[in-house]
Amino acid sequence: MTLQPASREIFHARLRQIGATRYHDKHPFHHRLHKGDCTLDQVQAWVINRWYYQASIPMKDAAFMSRCTDPQLRRIWRSRIADHDGDLEAGGGIRRWLKLAQGVGLDPDYVASGQGVMPATRFAVDAYVRFVRDAPLIAAMASSLTEMFAPAIHEQRIRGLLEHYAFATDETLAYFSQRLSEAPKDVTFTLDWVLVHATTAADQDAAAAALTFKTDVLWALLDALWHGYVTGDAPPGAWQPGQGQLIR
Amino acid sequence: MTLQPASREIFHARLRQIGATRYHDKHPFHHRLHKGDCTLDQVQAWVINRWYYQASIPMKDAAFMSRCTDPQLRRIWRSRIADHDGDLEAGGGIRRWLKLAQGVGLDPDYVASGQGVMPATRFAVDAYVRFVRDAPLIAAMASSLTEMFAPAIHEQRIRGLLEHYAFATDETLAYFSQRLSEAPKDVTFTLDWVLVHATTAADQDAAAAALTFKTDVLWALLDALWHGYVTGDAPPGAWQPGQGQLIR
Repeated sequence: MTLQPASREIFHARLRQIGATRYHDKHPFHHRLHKGDCTLDQVQAWVINRWYYQASIPMKDAAFMSRCTDPQLRRIWRSRIADHDGDLEAGGGIRRWLKLAQGVGLDPDYVASGQGVMPATRFAVDAYVRFVRDAPLIAAMASSLTEMFAPAIHEQRIRGLLEHYAFATDETLAYFSQRLSEAPKDVTFTLDWVLVHATTAADQDAAAAALTFKTDVLWALLDALWHGYVTGDAPPGAWQPGQGQLIR
Repeated sequence: MTLQPASREIFHARLRQIGATRYHDKHPFHHRLHKGDCTLDQVQAWVINRWYYQASIPMKDAAFMSRCTDPQLRRIWRSRIADHDGDLEAGGGIRRWLKLAQGVGLDPDYVASGQGVMPATRFAVDAYVRFVRDAPLIAAMASSLTEMFAPAIHEQRIRGLLEHYAFATDETLAYFSQRLSEAPKDVTFTLDWVLVHATTAADQDAAAAALTFKTDVLWALLDALWHGYVTGDAPPGAWQPGQGQLIR
């Protein structure tokens, strides 16, 4: 017996529920960060490791486009790469992330080198890029739907950082404020696409599993960060506080 | 200017030095395990997560063979798969690991399902399998050279577990005692192959980087285990103490 798919409303609610229970806004590291309880070392560790995620996003989107046969879908998707990479001379999420790096006292060249990134960060982020390259199309698209939950955490973050940390300014937080307008555009299209194209129960299960997988990736990044820099047991070769500082 | 390769002796010493500084016998989780300081829950968490590594090893070796054009090298490598998978009815490292699972009070079917494995464990182990499939041949081979350092940790482990834990018997620890004879056979061949075939400085660097990568994988598994079950912050969906217990 083949199971009937759920209605779009119920399927949508199922996806939202994954965010409600597993999105990384629930992770203790974010509570700590947004409440102002992180040391500058911990903020720097977050910026260095999260850089690897940021820098991989346009590769993830290129991996998606590399296996996407529908030119119209590729045309729509392409703006994601432009949003993150920016133009030849200026702009883009990656450059904005390096402004944040500078703002927290790190040498942006050191951060961009990826030298201090923990292996656990690489393993999780690389798993995401490969998933998007190799999984069925609907799962590859659904894995990006954590962006449904992103504006709320970005708002919390902007508010929390501005309140608690001297490094927080409109310029250093530009990455997050920019995402407030970019993410909804992407997610409106992709959510609609997934809701419409997941026409079987198996498609819906695959989309839900993909979104769950993506929440696992984001959670694993913060678990590694906590173990490395809150518990204080960073693995061999990873960034140590004091390395990669900006000489002013 | 092309750098000259180091002599075999110096290259060999360089590889050994990676083990001396980065192999997971230095990880606090192993100290805790071997000293008898792990709770039964922590031992179970280790057995469940390390299962994913054990179960992936024959896939890793098949991935190696899938890209290895030299039939003689494939013929030699094949015994690794047989060592782990065993025969149709009996034998093999995977079945021996499930004996350990049973010995520590876990339902072997639950362990074999991989249900409770942490995402961070999957990310690290999957990265290893892909590395061996995709990296240059010499790097793929060198990544297995952590086995140079394995007999010492297996001996420590057998001694430590027998001394401190009621579950430890010749039968439950058969996986480790068997590896004492299997690993040296594999490593003698592979180390020799790498020492002989790394004829340029670039080859030697690639082999050293591959071995370092592999120590990162093993270290990340224990960091995740520590965060999840010693600190006690297992990620959403991972095994919780009490799940998957053997009904006697």
